[in-house]
Amino acid sequence: MSGNVYGTLFRLTTYGESHGPGLGGVVDGCPAGIPLDEAVLQRELDRRRPGQGGLAATARKEADQVRILSGVFEGMTTGTPIAFHVENTDHRSADYSAVKDIYRPGHADFSFEAKFGLRDYRGGGRSSGRETVSRVAGGAVAQALLRAEGIAVYVCTVELGGIPARLVDWEGAQERPYFSPDPDAPAAWDERVKAVKSSGDTLGGVVEVRIVGVPAGLGEPVFDKLDARLAGALMSVGAVKAVEIGAGCRAARMLGSENNDPITVEGFASNNAGGVLGGISSGQDIVVRAYVKPIPSISREQRTVTRSGEAAIITVGGRHDIAAIPRINPVLKAMAALTLADLLLMDRRLGMRE
Amino acid sequence: MSGNVYGTLFRLTTYGESHGPGLGGVVDGCPAGIPLDEAVLQRELDRRRPGQGGLAATARKEADQVRILSGVFEGMTTGTPIAFHVENTDHRSADYSAVKDIYRPGHADFSFEAKFGLRDYRGGGRSSGRETVSRVAGGAVAQALLRAEGIAVYVCTVELGGIPARLVDWEGAQERPYFSPDPDAPAAWDERVKAVKSSGDTLGGVVEVRIVGVPAGLGEPVFDKLDARLAGALMSVGAVKAVEIGAGCRAARMLGSENNDPITVEGFASNNAGGVLGGISSGQDIVVRAYVKPIPSISREQRTVTRSGEAAIITVGGRHDIAAIPRINPVLKAMAALTLADLLLMDRRLGMRE
Amino acid sequence: MSGNVYGTLFRLTTYGESHGPGLGGVVDGCPAGIPLDEAVLQRELDRRRPGQGGLAATARKEADQVRILSGVFEGMTTGTPIAFHVENTDHRSADYSAVKDIYRPGHADFSFEAKFGLRDYRGGGRSSGRETVSRVAGGAVAQALLRAEGIAVYVCTVELGGIPARLVDWEGAQERPYFSPDPDAPAAWDERVKAVKSSGDTLGGVVEVRIVGVPAGLGEPVFDKLDARLAGALMSVGAVKAVEIGAGCRAARMLGSENNDPITVEGFASNNAGGVLGGISSGQDIVVRAYVKPIPSISREQRTVTRSGEAAIITVGGRHDIAAIPRINPVLKAMAALTLADLLLMDRRLGMRE
Amino acid sequence: MSGNVYGTLFRLTTYGESHGPGLGGVVDGCPAGIPLDEAVLQRELDRRRPGQGGLAATARKEADQVRILSGVFEGMTTGTPIAFHVENTDHRSADYSAVKDIYRPGHADFSFEAKFGLRDYRGGGRSSGRETVSRVAGGAVAQALLRAEGIAVYVCTVELGGIPARLVDWEGAQERPYFSPDPDAPAAWDERVKAVKSSGDTLGGVVEVRIVGVPAGLGEPVFDKLDARLAGALMSVGAVKAVEIGAGCRAARMLGSENNDPITVEGFASNNAGGVLGGISSGQDIVVRAYVKPIPSISREQRTVTRSGEAAIITVGGRHDIAAIPRINPVLKAMAALTLADLLLMDRRLGMRE
Repeated sequence: MSGNVYGTLFRLTTYGESHGPGLGGVVDGCPAGIPLDEAVLQRELDRRRPGQGGLAATARKEADQVRILSGVFEGMTTGTPIAFHVENTDHRSADYSAVKDIYRPGHADFSFEAKFGLRDYRGGGRSSGRETVSRVAGGAVAQALLRAEGIAVYVCTVELGGIPARLVDWEGAQERPYFSPDPDAPAAWDERVKAVKSSGDTLGGVVEVRIVGVPAGLGEPVFDKLDARLAGALMSVGAVKAVEIGAGCRAARMLGSENNDPITVEGFASNNAGGVLGGISSGQDIVVRAYVKPIPSISREQRTVTRSGEAAIITVGGRHDIAAIPRINPVLKAMAALTLADLLLMDRRLGMRE
Repeated sequence: MSGNVYGTLFRLTTYGESHGPGLGGVVDGCPAGIPLDEAVLQRELDRRRPGQGGLAATARKEADQVRILSGVFEGMTTGTPIAFHVENTDHRSADYSAVKDIYRPGHADFSFEAKFGLRDYRGGGRSSGRETVSRVAGGAVAQALLRAEGIAVYVCTVELGGIPARLVDWEGAQERPYFSPDPDAPAAWDERVKAVKSSGDTLGGVVEVRIVGVPAGLGEPVFDKLDARLAGALMSVGAVKAVEIGAGCRAARMLGSENNDPITVEGFASNNAGGVLGGISSGQDIVVRAYVKPIPSISREQRTVTRSGEAAIITVGGRHDIAAIPRINPVLKAMAALTLADLLLMDRRLGMRE
Repeated sequence: MSGNVYGTLFRLTTYGESHGPGLGGVVDGCPAGIPLDEAVLQRELDRRRPGQGGLAATARKEADQVRILSGVFEGMTTGTPIAFHVENTDHRSADYSAVKDIYRPGHADFSFEAKFGLRDYRGGGRSSGRETVSRVAGGAVAQALLRAEGIAVYVCTVELGGIPARLVDWEGAQERPYFSPDPDAPAAWDERVKAVKSSGDTLGGVVEVRIVGVPAGLGEPVFDKLDARLAGALMSVGAVKAVEIGAGCRAARMLGSENNDPITVEGFASNNAGGVLGGISSGQDIVVRAYVKPIPSISREQRTVTRSGEAAIITVGGRHDIAAIPRINPVLKAMAALTLADLLLMDRRLGMRE
Repeated sequence: MSGNVYGTLFRLTTYGESHGPGLGGVVDGCPAGIPLDEAVLQRELDRRRPGQGGLAATARKEADQVRILSGVFEGMTTGTPIAFHVENTDHRSADYSAVKDIYRPGHADFSFEAKFGLRDYRGGGRSSGRETVSRVAGGAVAQALLRAEGIAVYVCTVELGGIPARLVDWEGAQERPYFSPDPDAPAAWDERVKAVKSSGDTLGGVVEVRIVGVPAGLGEPVFDKLDARLAGALMSVGAVKAVEIGAGCRAARMLGSENNDPITVEGFASNNAGGVLGGISSGQDIVVRAYVKPIPSISREQRTVTRSGEAAIITVGGRHDIAAIPRINPVLKAMAALTLADLLLMDRRLGMRE
């Protein structure tokens, strides 16, 4: 297996299985002098816990207590690699034994087995949602760097189960159930979740990541465009099936005269571009949205086949969320932060003689 | 500037400006023994020329004659780096001098200048559409490798200016105007293009890339998921504002029971996943769509500012396309092929002891 | 700080300071199915401890108990990242406080401060010899992979303080004091060490790494030549001032007719090449030697300057080794193993169609 | 084949075979605003030609006219990739046909065939000395960057065929036969070359690279130490069998009190370290030496085997140099320059908040 490293200059390497000793990662390339301690990482990890889920998240309790193993001294980064580790405490293998010899629709069971010849049926191994613990902790380091540069990353749920939220307060969304930017949406979403749950089904939705304070000039013009890197980063999170920037999909149906953002002496008059022109930040807010599919683990009956190729009916039990939202939100935020941090360092280097 | 390299094992490095001597690239990592010659590259480059554009593309004539400089001997790759070069022949700097001191809305003028302190107003430098010549030629090398493995990459236009095509014949689309998968769509699109052109405006659309013959098992489970890599690759092409895989955006509004693809003894019963489960190919067709914004160069009046910060009105003249489609299509195909080739090699290596 | 990652396909990322919580690393890219457990890593780490040092190593006790955090299940690698951690237990910061404001000759004090503006005077931070704990553990993973391919890496001391060893038994050297390939050398070396120690001085020497069972064909022809990669890997270990392969320095004074290894039907008649031709393994033993400078921490008086630029006399106290040999030996072995593992995977990939 | 890329931030990708259309490369990552034109590259390429060889180099005439294809505008780098190409003009395949089915001792014939299953007997393909054309041109770009930072790279021959040169004028060595730092050495070397040539044999020697004006602080503390990177870079040049820095091999026989460079208020009192402490430049001259084996192509009879495994006697004819020196000198200089440029950019980036 490969591909456990993200970034070129600000580089996160992750490790860990859902049913092994624990999960963690190493950040190589973080500059010295950034305020950082375990509480900064813990705060982001706590946002990934069921607590903030409204009714959509399971009751599984994961302490997810993070420990920093290197690279931080007296509350500051030292410029050396920052390693962190989260010990696994709550893993019950028994929950998964029923699915050992059968492929769950919508899951990676079939493709993993095709690739590796074996698969870790005990919670999915590296394809488990628990893998994202390392992303969230690594992303917290990236956010600490961005914060020191005046850049903040926000995340909010703009749609769940087809019910949209009004984008009235995305700063407050960070602490609201479902990361809702709309004080009224959570009640409607709770209702929808309850109904779908009782029918043994699951929901998808849309998450928006908004990055403010980004100076003009981040991103590289050809393959490492800022939007290209963000698209790859967000799509690398399981359950994301589409990524758009600014007007996104809608731009395909606009005329040039509608889609172009007029420039005025006060700045851009609109933000259809999503803060990126030619792959390079324009100084506007970066606005990117991820479309999240419904959780594939449903308790309704589904057609599938066994490992030996016989037709079968499966109902997936166990403690499963009804929607990947809102637990996916801090993961998307982390990936956006890691991407910005990497491009920030890439840009610093190249400004040297200009 | 950085980011002129794509891929890890099958690696394309590109170079060239629209108004310099020429453009080209080097492919490092292509295995030996793949049939390849200049005609293979030329065929793809020709698909990028205005010829196939219906009425949407400009009359600018670019010979774009490619020359292979290394790595091929007697019609076969030798395993050494494959370099290719396309000489620039038709560049009239005069066309662009009017925009030297003003920022064109929707263009990279502003963000480039913020990043580099200067910009190549003579056609955009590395942000020019001509940069994609190197992608298309490099992608042709990737397609040669894929072909040898039984994998084919198709591209077709599924919507232009809001008018959809029926997806009735995507194999034939490769040779049809606009790369249309629908014999009837080009006429409707021509009409729409004519109307918009006369009003000085431009159009966007949607392009689908379909990859057939992909064995189950390509893609890496965490950061280098097949869909993540495809999303980053397609979004790195200028004008693309959204990328989706399989059901894509629609998946966010589906129930789990609707979105999951049932598995039967004959194979998957649907393909909402787009051929990727857990970031790894499932053996189904890979289906990915790119949403393309309208060309920002419009001859209608737009508000903007000059480099010295004064309000101004701009109308962009010159020989410009009405839509990035269909000239963007072979570029998207190339990026998909480069991604698949890279993940194919990555997978080969890791299968070694399994 | 950067450069904490070694390798391209078999990739080791390391972390940790001598006076922080601990040290460790993550190996990304190790194939599945390789026998591995903590005992395999511990065995190599124990070889790095003062125990095997004859009289040359200090009395500092480091338990260096390693824990594997991921990637191994039931005694086999799973193909996922292998993380390991060694907790620091014996670090007395007080030992180093005397050198806080003065540059020790032969140490990295001056250059680190020039680079980072600060330095970790508490044992050197990432420039500490303790950083090599991670290399040795990571190298043990590499050796496990090599072993599965029939490749073994040996290390022996061929000279200490100017006194050579006869190269009569390099297999047995692995368990002998000083990793001596000569049963008689350790007594002579002990004598030399004692004499030098009493005069407050230190010694250098030469270490040979010998890799057997390497198939012909490893290494890439241009920049990633096998000998180039080995030279870089061994020189990255602190105290190494020269690296040679095969006849090495002596080759510069030989005639072509002397240096060329004749080829016979039984194989090569000599091994001046050191097992590498054109950067690619020839199937002979790989033989490479590292020249190790004397430990710079001496208790004799030396001229230096303080951080504020005043002339000073320094004598470096504390628990220091008399020679980097033999504790450096398993580190050099580890770096050679990591290099071979990386090139082995690189070669596998490229053999695909040939 | 892989490994045709050198560097991480200042990155050179090379291509080309000795008997194909030509050779060249692309430099990605060079900052904008560096004075550069074809003459700068040509000057270094000319130093690689037989002209400066004293009697050691062949009469083969290679025009080696370089053309810059991108990245330079009006005599300055633009920050975009710099591509260059050298057309092959003088290749007579017939010269090599005699060695098609036999392995030349000391050459890569055997190992290449073991790796790739085939080999380009027409001059060696990528293992040919002509591959270094791309290194020299790429190195000239690196030197242009270094020059803008006040760093200069010198190269001189300090020993040939066992006859040393006095190191009395290494600046002048750049324009002297054999790159000799000693006005008297070339005559003695000519004599030695003549004698060895008449006996059908070849010579080795030692080349010193000296880099002046390097600020303290370049190099990364762990795997990307400045000396480690230099060792790997120089050893990647064919024929180099050992690399040493500063006192190098001699350091292994010195006492700590002899080897440590005392620090005084006027600076370091000696330079046994070779300008590198803990892998980081100290501000002294960087001094590194490469030990070069004799050319393996000798006209004396040698024992070998044919491809079908039968014993044979070979005498290698053709136009061959008597020593790799002095044509290897600008190649070693180029590799040192490429390494410094890469570490310079790496360091710039990391200084951001310190």
